[in-house]
Amino acid sequence: MPAIDSDAFLRDLHELRKIGQFRTGVHRPTYSPQDMESRRWLTDRLTACGLDASIDGIGNVCGRHKGPGPHLLSGSHIESQNEAGWLDGALGVMAAVALARAGLPVDVCAFADEEGHFEGGFLGSRSIIGELPDDEIDRSRSRNDGSPLRDALRAAGLEGRPRLQLEPGRHKGFFEMHIEQGTQLESAGLQIGVVTGIVAIWQYRLVIKGQQDHAGGTTMAERRDAGLTAVRLLAAIDAEFPRIAGERSVWTTGRIVLDPGAPSIIPGGADVLFQFRDVSVAVLERMEATLQALVREANRRERCTVTLHTVSKAIPALCDPTMMDALSGAAEILAPGKWQRMPSGAGHDAQNIARHMPAAMLFVPSIGGISHHWAEDTKDADLALGIQVLGEAARRFLAA
Amino acid sequence: MPAIDSDAFLRDLHELRKIGQFRTGVHRPTYSPQDMESRRWLTDRLTACGLDASIDGIGNVCGRHKGPGPHLLSGSHIESQNEAGWLDGALGVMAAVALARAGLPVDVCAFADEEGHFEGGFLGSRSIIGELPDDEIDRSRSRNDGSPLRDALRAAGLEGRPRLQLEPGRHKGFFEMHIEQGTQLESAGLQIGVVTGIVAIWQYRLVIKGQQDHAGGTTMAERRDAGLTAVRLLAAIDAEFPRIAGERSVWTTGRIVLDPGAPSIIPGGADVLFQFRDVSVAVLERMEATLQALVREANRRERCTVTLHTVSKAIPALCDPTMMDALSGAAEILAPGKWQRMPSGAGHDAQNIARHMPAAMLFVPSIGGISHHWAEDTKDADLALGIQVLGEAARRFLAA
Repeated sequence: MPAIDSDAFLRDLHELRKIGQFRTGVHRPTYSPQDMESRRWLTDRLTACGLDASIDGIGNVCGRHKGPGPHLLSGSHIESQNEAGWLDGALGVMAAVALARAGLPVDVCAFADEEGHFEGGFLGSRSIIGELPDDEIDRSRSRNDGSPLRDALRAAGLEGRPRLQLEPGRHKGFFEMHIEQGTQLESAGLQIGVVTGIVAIWQYRLVIKGQQDHAGGTTMAERRDAGLTAVRLLAAIDAEFPRIAGERSVWTTGRIVLDPGAPSIIPGGADVLFQFRDVSVAVLERMEATLQALVREANRRERCTVTLHTVSKAIPALCDPTMMDALSGAAEILAPGKWQRMPSGAGHDAQNIARHMPAAMLFVPSIGGISHHWAEDTKDADLALGIQVLGEAARRFLAA
Repeated sequence: MPAIDSDAFLRDLHELRKIGQFRTGVHRPTYSPQDMESRRWLTDRLTACGLDASIDGIGNVCGRHKGPGPHLLSGSHIESQNEAGWLDGALGVMAAVALARAGLPVDVCAFADEEGHFEGGFLGSRSIIGELPDDEIDRSRSRNDGSPLRDALRAAGLEGRPRLQLEPGRHKGFFEMHIEQGTQLESAGLQIGVVTGIVAIWQYRLVIKGQQDHAGGTTMAERRDAGLTAVRLLAAIDAEFPRIAGERSVWTTGRIVLDPGAPSIIPGGADVLFQFRDVSVAVLERMEATLQALVREANRRERCTVTLHTVSKAIPALCDPTMMDALSGAAEILAPGKWQRMPSGAGHDAQNIARHMPAAMLFVPSIGGISHHWAEDTKDADLALGIQVLGEAARRFLAA
C-alpha cells in the first residue's frame, strides 16, 4: 500500500481553513456561501484524487471510489459552528481524502449540517441512511434566523437534486477521525484516542410547582418554595448518582430558572434542565430509574410538586470491536503507550452511520480542550500521527 | 374620651377606595394624578377633623392637632403598589384620622412613597426624620419608567415647597395600623397582631466562578461546575440555618442564574440572591456568621470559588414596650384570646419614625394573606375591631 501523504493532508486542511476564515478559525454555517464554496472545493479535490464526486439534494458531498471492493466509507462534516474552529468536521473529511489519495478503496463523504444549524440536525448522515423524511425537511427551520430549510436549499442551488442513499453491502465499515473536544488526551499526555462508542444523551426537564409568596410575610413553616425543592432534589442527585453511574458517565444541570426570580419573593416555580450521558443503555436506564426514584421521593417529602418531563433519549452507538482492534493495533505500533480507548461525549455523524455498518472513530487531542470556538486547535504533529494511524488501521481492517 | 366612630372610619376607607379604583383594589402610584387626588382628598378630611392640614415638598400630607399635648403621631402611606389593594397604607392613614376625629391629640401623617415607586423608597418618612438629602432626590428615578423624581414632583405641583420635619419633643410616640400581609393571624383564628418589631432584611449576592465546558467532553473529575457548587452551598444553608436561626427568622433564595444556562454546557458561573430577616440583631449576626462559615467551607471543598457580596443590611426596628403593653392591654379587653404578639416581616414607615420616637404597630388579618394585589381584603368586623383597639391603646399610652 502506498504511504499516507501527511504533508498533502496538512496542506489540504490549511487550504480549506481559508474558506470562510474567521480569526484563526472559520465561519461556515450550513448552506452559507462559504459552506457551499467549501463543498465545491471539496468536489474538485475528490475528482483530483480519482473519485466520482457529486453534491446531493441535502448538500452531502460524496466521492465514490471507481475500483473494486471491499470498500470503506470515511468522512465527517465540512460546515462549522458559527465563528468556530478549523478542525471540527473538516479534519475527518480531509482524513478520508488522504486515505483515498493513498489509493485505499475509500468512498469519501462530507455530511451536511452535523452542527445543527437547522432544526433536527445531522441532516446529511440521517439522509444517507434514509432517516430524514421529506416532511421533516419541509418543516425544519434555521436555528440562526428561523428561515425555512427549503429556502436555504434553494438558495444554495440544491433544490430538486436527488438525495444519495447508502448502497447496501458496498461498505465494510466507516471510519471517522475527529478532534477530541475535551482534555482527556492532553491531560494524560496521549496523542491518540480509540473511540469505544458515542454516548447517548438522555435529557429531562424538571418542573417544580410551589406557591409564590412574600419573603417577609410567610413563615418557613408555611412556605412552598419551588426553588428550595429544586435545590434539595439536585443535591440528592449529586449524592446518589456517583453510586449508580458508570465509570465514564456524566450528568449535568445546565439551567435552573426560578419564577419570578426576585430577591424578596419566594419562588412559586422552578424549571431545571438535566441530562446524563453514557455509552451503555443499561447504565442509562439505571440513571433514569434513579432519577425517577429521587423525583418520587421529592414528591413524598416536599410541599411542592415535581414533574419529570423527558426531552429526548438517544441510543448510544457502540464502535465495532474489529475496527477498534485495527485502530488500537495501529496506534500501538505508531504511538506506543501514547494512546487510550475512550468514549466520545459529543455526538458525531458516525452514530448514524453505525446503525447501518460497522463504524469506528479516532480522536486526536484538542489543545486546552477548546472546541466550538475559533481558538480550537491541534498540533500539526498530532494531526500527522493521527492520519498515519488511521491509514494503518484502514489497511488492517480491510485485510481482516 | 369620646368613642372611636367605626362607621365613619369604614365610610372614609370606602370613599378613599374610589380614588384610582382598579377592580376591587386601587391603582395609585406615587405622584400619579390618582395619588395626588387622594392627597388633596385627605387634606380636606384632616381640615374637617379640625387639624391644620398641608402637603409638603415630598408629598407628605400632615394634619397638625391644634390643642395642647402630649401629642401622638399616627399614619402610614396613601399611595399604592400598581394595581394593588385598597387597605395597604390607606388603613393606617384613615385609622389616624379616626383617632383625630374622636378628639385624641393626634397629628396625622400620610408619608409619600413607602411603596418605593422611586429609587430609595420610603421618601416621606425618611424626609420627615431628616434622612433624605436633596442630592438623593436629584438622583432618584422612577422604577416604573426611569423618569427623574424631580420631574414627577414638578408635575405633581410639589416643586419648591418646603419639606416638613418632625418637631423635637412634640410627640410621645407613633402608632401605625396596617394589614398583616400574611396568614398567621388568619391561620390561628386571631383578629389582632401586636407588632414586636419590624424585621431587618440582610441581603447577599453569592457569585460563583467555575469553568464553562462541554457537557459531553468533560469528565466529572475534570469539571468545575459553578451550578453544582451553588446547589451544594444552598443545600448546606438549608441544613444548617434551622439550627442557628431564631424562632421567627426567615431565609430565602429568590434567584439562581446559571451562566450560560444551556442544556449541554457545564455552567461556568452562578449568581445567587440570598436574604434573611429577623427582628434581633444578635440573630441576624449569627445567621451572617453561619453564612460566611458555609461560604468558607465551600471554598475549601469545591473546585469553584464562591464570593459573598453584601447587598444591604438594615437595622431592625423594635417596637416600644410601653406602647406594646398599651396595645396588648386594649386587645385583651376588646378581643380576649383573639390576639398575639408577632414581628412584621415587611418594611413599614414606622421603622423610620421609630428611630426618633417610641413607635408601635397594630396588625389586622389579611384574607388569604393576599397583599400587593388588587384582591387584598380584610373583613369589616376586623377593621372595626382594630380601630377600637388602637383607640383604647392610644388613650392608655397617653395616660401612661
